[in-house]
Amino acid sequence: MSSNDPYLLTPGPLTTSATVKQAMLHDWGSWDGDFNAMTAGVCERLLKVAGGEDSHVCIPMQGSGTFVVEATLGTVIRPSSRTLVLMNGAYGQRIGKILTTLGRPYLAIDKGDYRPPRGSEVAEALAANPDIEQVVVVHCETSSGILNPIEEIAAVCSKAGRRLIIDSMSAFGALPVNVAQLPCAALVSSANKCFEGVPGFSFAIVDRELLTASAGQCHSLSLDLHDQWQYLEKTGQWRYTPPTHVVAAFLQAMNEHEIEGGVAGRLARYTRNRDRLVAGLRDLGFQTLLVDEWLSPIITTFLSPDSPAFEFRRFYDAIKQRGFVIYPGKLTIADSFRVGCIGQLHDAQIDAVIEAVADACLELGLTLPVPAPADAPDNLRTA
Amino acid sequence: MSSNDPYLLTPGPLTTSATVKQAMLHDWGSWDGDFNAMTAGVCERLLKVAGGEDSHVCIPMQGSGTFVVEATLGTVIRPSSRTLVLMNGAYGQRIGKILTTLGRPYLAIDKGDYRPPRGSEVAEALAANPDIEQVVVVHCETSSGILNPIEEIAAVCSKAGRRLIIDSMSAFGALPVNVAQLPCAALVSSANKCFEGVPGFSFAIVDRELLTASAGQCHSLSLDLHDQWQYLEKTGQWRYTPPTHVVAAFLQAMNEHEIEGGVAGRLARYTRNRDRLVAGLRDLGFQTLLVDEWLSPIITTFLSPDSPAFEFRRFYDAIKQRGFVIYPGKLTIADSFRVGCIGQLHDAQIDAVIEAVADACLELGLTLPVPAPADAPDNLRTA
Repeated sequence: MSSNDPYLLTPGPLTTSATVKQAMLHDWGSWDGDFNAMTAGVCERLLKVAGGEDSHVCIPMQGSGTFVVEATLGTVIRPSSRTLVLMNGAYGQRIGKILTTLGRPYLAIDKGDYRPPRGSEVAEALAANPDIEQVVVVHCETSSGILNPIEEIAAVCSKAGRRLIIDSMSAFGALPVNVAQLPCAALVSSANKCFEGVPGFSFAIVDRELLTASAGQCHSLSLDLHDQWQYLEKTGQWRYTPPTHVVAAFLQAMNEHEIEGGVAGRLARYTRNRDRLVAGLRDLGFQTLLVDEWLSPIITTFLSPDSPAFEFRRFYDAIKQRGFVIYPGKLTIADSFRVGCIGQLHDAQIDAVIEAVADACLELGLTLPVPAPADAPDNLRTA
Repeated sequence: MSSNDPYLLTPGPLTTSATVKQAMLHDWGSWDGDFNAMTAGVCERLLKVAGGEDSHVCIPMQGSGTFVVEATLGTVIRPSSRTLVLMNGAYGQRIGKILTTLGRPYLAIDKGDYRPPRGSEVAEALAANPDIEQVVVVHCETSSGILNPIEEIAAVCSKAGRRLIIDSMSAFGALPVNVAQLPCAALVSSANKCFEGVPGFSFAIVDRELLTASAGQCHSLSLDLHDQWQYLEKTGQWRYTPPTHVVAAFLQAMNEHEIEGGVAGRLARYTRNRDRLVAGLRDLGFQTLLVDEWLSPIITTFLSPDSPAFEFRRFYDAIKQRGFVIYPGKLTIADSFRVGCIGQLHDAQIDAVIEAVADACLELGLTLPVPAPADAPDNLRTA
């Protein structure tokens, strides 16, 4: 990596290690045994991280995270069955949009921009709608940075005898998940998030029995997860050309994930990054959207300062000039920006980001009052 | 690239240059201006190579070639309209399979394993079926290695007032195509073929008016080409996370394509590779499936020798040990294997492949009679 490359403080694509990128300095035949062994290694290890060795299978899918969300919904949901979608941000909304495109009926619990869906309201909805077969929830809603309470939702689904599908795009690899214990019928994630690979494929971890029963249900050939699985089982190969270099980088990323101590090790570093970042930016006078209880160790939303000197585009550029790429906000109710803490970021980078933000404020002539906790806008900060 | 890496003599993923791979040694923010400029550059230059600057637009799509074939068919074909699919191998068959999955009616002209669809029979089918709105053809059918006569097919479609969609996956970049002159409503191809990038995305070059009229037709959210285009136009960004590193590699690959003399330069090298390879393997006693007229400068199918000493797996391994990965056959009517001539292959590599094949024959105890032309099985070698 050139020393001029900015660090990415985004929800992914993120800053990867030099060794992960160097794993792409080779070409592989997608039909060849050497590459098939890499695919098998990736799937086996992902399944182990998810605790699904005895109950689930892991299927990679070309494309971004949205591709595997659509592939999973399109493959495992019976076309006539009804789904409950829990929404509190852009990614929950997108799940609804996919189901609409596919013509699959659903009911939504929409909590707005950032409030978490709770077990009790899911239980109520399931009791009132016995025809609902599955519930879909986003694990970490990066549009606000909230970590949704998947354990209490899983417990409710299990008790009501409904399947749970988790979009764990930005959480799996850093937040502990055990698909067999939760339980969860399907979990999807992507290469360029907490495992710190580069973007180009995503994957689903699906209950073996459910997937077996899903033949012929998919609306798409390319996104048919059952077909992809069957072909992998028979040949060891992806059904259509895989992103070979991206898979090689991911295998290296999984090695480094293991060396860091797996999920526990990564969670510790990301949590430390977030705590350091939030403390530093609060010291500068910025406020987080959420109270501490709901902050994920993935990405944090900060409210845009209520000052004419603040304009996101200029703020972004000033920080980028100092070597860091931050992320725009995605709220409908308030101006905000986001700062991620995943990827190859350590104390030194986090400290430098805080300094870059401080310098950017100076450059923009932005002075922030350090608010007393009581000044926090209550409507935004409580769930 | 390590000197131990075998050369890939396959229809892609193929052997790329060291500099193309080195372009992946950086991380980019998918939302950032630096990356948006790369996407814009790629699309602009692809459009120029296709001669579509005034009439068409270029839209990249995450995933393998099949993803963009499905995206294009799903987006631009009116759901109730009928399509004529020209088949002479696995990729034509796959187009039929996609339309079946999408529930879109089609008629097929199936020429079997390798015979080319001719303009006259397309004209007949279009005259007999006035309800057909579009024709789909595969440019280079790599399952046999045949180069289909797209010019005569385009002329017939144009005369009959029907749209032509070309799957030019393995040909675009090395075979001259001008979408405005042909004419052709849509052409699709992929990053890891004749432009010599790495796999991870594909692209469609679509008539602007046709795409504008295609809003809301797609069966899929992820594969909606119209949506992808609109988002790109509005924001300069891909709609969902792009394979950033693969795009960077492709931009470098396009630079090298230009330096080699563009389509003409690449065609010259690939043609030279094919001629050298075919001559060398014929000298060893191997026979090509097709007569010279139909051989593409992409990949060539050789008939498996009719000898008990020939077993593809052992032959493949013996050649791989010598540093080259060849490709299995895909014919239903005869045992065969394939050798590609695209990617970073020059005289030295082609000569070394011929030597490796000769050595493999010795190792396997395979002696081939050099056949007189009259010995060629006529049923296989004439179109």
